[in-house]
Amino acid sequence: MESGKLLYAQSGGVTAVINATAAAVIETARRHKITAYAARNGIVGALREELIDTTKESAATVRALRHTPGGAFGSCRYKLKSIDDNRAQYERLIEVFRAHEIRWFLYNGGNDSADTALKLSQIGKTLGYDIRCIGVPKTVDNDLVMTDCCPGFGSVAKYTAVSVRECALDVASMAQSSTKVFVMEVMGRHAGWIAASAGLAGTGRGDAPHIILFPEIPFDETKFLERVRETVDRVGWCVVVASEGIKNPEGKFLSEAGTTDAFGHAQLGGVAPALASLVRDKLKLKVHWALPDYLQRSARHIASKTDAEQAFAVGKAAVEYVLKGMNAVMPVIMRTSDSPYRWKTVPAPLDQIANREKKLPGSFVTKDGFGITAAARKYLSPLIRGEAPPPYGKDGLPEYVVFKNTAVRKKLPEFDI
Amino acid sequence: MESGKLLYAQSGGVTAVINATAAAVIETARRHKITAYAARNGIVGALREELIDTTKESAATVRALRHTPGGAFGSCRYKLKSIDDNRAQYERLIEVFRAHEIRWFLYNGGNDSADTALKLSQIGKTLGYDIRCIGVPKTVDNDLVMTDCCPGFGSVAKYTAVSVRECALDVASMAQSSTKVFVMEVMGRHAGWIAASAGLAGTGRGDAPHIILFPEIPFDETKFLERVRETVDRVGWCVVVASEGIKNPEGKFLSEAGTTDAFGHAQLGGVAPALASLVRDKLKLKVHWALPDYLQRSARHIASKTDAEQAFAVGKAAVEYVLKGMNAVMPVIMRTSDSPYRWKTVPAPLDQIANREKKLPGSFVTKDGFGITAAARKYLSPLIRGEAPPPYGKDGLPEYVVFKNTAVRKKLPEFDI
Repeated sequence: MESGKLLYAQSGGVTAVINATAAAVIETARRHKITAYAARNGIVGALREELIDTTKESAATVRALRHTPGGAFGSCRYKLKSIDDNRAQYERLIEVFRAHEIRWFLYNGGNDSADTALKLSQIGKTLGYDIRCIGVPKTVDNDLVMTDCCPGFGSVAKYTAVSVRECALDVASMAQSSTKVFVMEVMGRHAGWIAASAGLAGTGRGDAPHIILFPEIPFDETKFLERVRETVDRVGWCVVVASEGIKNPEGKFLSEAGTTDAFGHAQLGGVAPALASLVRDKLKLKVHWALPDYLQRSARHIASKTDAEQAFAVGKAAVEYVLKGMNAVMPVIMRTSDSPYRWKTVPAPLDQIANREKKLPGSFVTKDGFGITAAARKYLSPLIRGEAPPPYGKDGLPEYVVFKNTAVRKKLPEFDI
Repeated sequence: MESGKLLYAQSGGVTAVINATAAAVIETARRHKITAYAARNGIVGALREELIDTTKESAATVRALRHTPGGAFGSCRYKLKSIDDNRAQYERLIEVFRAHEIRWFLYNGGNDSADTALKLSQIGKTLGYDIRCIGVPKTVDNDLVMTDCCPGFGSVAKYTAVSVRECALDVASMAQSSTKVFVMEVMGRHAGWIAASAGLAGTGRGDAPHIILFPEIPFDETKFLERVRETVDRVGWCVVVASEGIKNPEGKFLSEAGTTDAFGHAQLGGVAPALASLVRDKLKLKVHWALPDYLQRSARHIASKTDAEQAFAVGKAAVEYVLKGMNAVMPVIMRTSDSPYRWKTVPAPLDQIANREKKLPGSFVTKDGFGITAAARKYLSPLIRGEAPPPYGKDGLPEYVVFKNTAVRKKLPEFDI
């Protein structure tokens, strides 16, 4: 066993289960007597030498982290530039690693983070410092290549499918004399994975969601309104699930198409209210809309057990990979069987993952562009299976944990980022 | 035991647990060998003689109704006019009751429904038909008088508190380099009960929600922005929970203050996006917002056990009241002890409930107008206690039931409403 420490950092939008990955990293490191540090607020904390000593947390607290949403150490939206454009940042990171004897860097994020981890592994070699970098997958968007699915996605998919099934029962009750159309906006700016997962809520032709709007399919106002009208005539009501990333015929995001609000300011995005207004004005139907935003990706209370297990597995695998001397890889989920659903973690090279994006395949969308196919169901269904509720206190609230996040003493001068 | 049938109807916005009340009515009626009919879509179905024979549903289906959200028979937004303005409708209802030997009418709704039930009990007497009417409480708004709380409220309160606790962990993770302010809009057009329940998510001064906006407190833009700024400076981020019913200084709902959207139409309401834009433009902070709408009141998956039990109890009590020959009453929840929390159902006269509204007491709001007091916590806390998750299928989705809703053969001519 080599000497040295491990540094773990979280990046990008957090998920309901990213902390399960963090817990796995810490627990696996402890089992192998490796000191695990974490960077405060992702790579930003690494640059600023704001490191956290996870050995100060109790075993019980780390265990509780498994079922706590959000990012325990803070995350960031900060993409390092290319080495050519900002070599100083990469050198600073190596300097921080050297100062704290960090030999392994685990970066938990999406394709940007995979890129950062890859570059760091390369520049370490150039600068004569042996740092091994492992990317750890995480994104509700499910858009990483090389992996069957992304930890974080299964839980938001479950939240979405459950919410649609529930609100559909509500709308069905109200439709005779009140709300006939319900529009729910979900995340997924470039890929329609979350929108597609809503399709799991129903199985029959009359079941919600009746219309799914994917970012991969250009929004056709006439066709959309016709389908809403036809659904209301046939079923009595209509549930629409729209991705935040749908675009108007001019290729502009509907959510950014320029609205003004009560205060006379430009309105912040919202595809759902725009679609709701359209339905109300053109079809004269009563409409309600919902936009769960962060609620969908932080809803640990309705997490998928499959997802929580996969999030834990990639954290554990990442530490095992460094122990095996691996570098510039990411533990990804490989599906080995659909029925029964089976999967395992395998290493995939970061240079095949970085900066790529997996869109929803055309074969997952029905010909009319408004629903999901049997192929999509086969893929999506296992990912929302199983419940993994957090423990609840006597007060009726989930018992989530907050880390102490004890700072590691700094050894280097300040660094402006 | 008198002969005759019982008619049950649901009214107004449905809740996560109104069907638990329906299940209790059906199960209790069966135990006492009473035939229970239900009206399709509330009072509208009663007027149209669209009745459902609940005896056609299996015991297992009725049992599953206990954990199914929405309204099993359909609800309605339809308020009967006064007897003076539309005597024909009341007479029609009595005619329908007479034709089907309905001797007991159970109307499950809010204060409007209490009013309808009360009037029906009066006109029956005038027309020489003995009909006994029981109001059964239901409303997420928690605004009925005479009852300690309203079935339906505890579950939306739990959904709200849990969601705020979860999304707060998300925002806290992102705040360093991304979202610093999160605004969540909740239901409650005239009373701030749901907004207040968000306060249960946190206990310490730094905990979310940092700002609650109640419909009872006029919205002061300057004071609000100052508090957001102060919270971000102190905590690093800020979570705002706003009632849909907050009004601008001119007394106009913020959600109706006139916005236009991407299609150039008047924008459908939304306090959250309006507040989010305000924060972004005046404070230059990155902001996210959520508007769960029907998701909050249909979220049976995170229902309060206390609430589900109370919803069942009022349905059971309502049938027991008719068996005792009672009339023009409502089974309400009486709190007999705060700690340990104890409650029982007691009858309250409909004429003291109809058309009244219970606002949040001033003593429940902190002096600054942005939070809840210890008195509010003492009242609210027991209502969200306990979990009552629905069963889940192997597909990872809650197993909700849909009734056959077998129609009772009509005996009367059509009636235009």
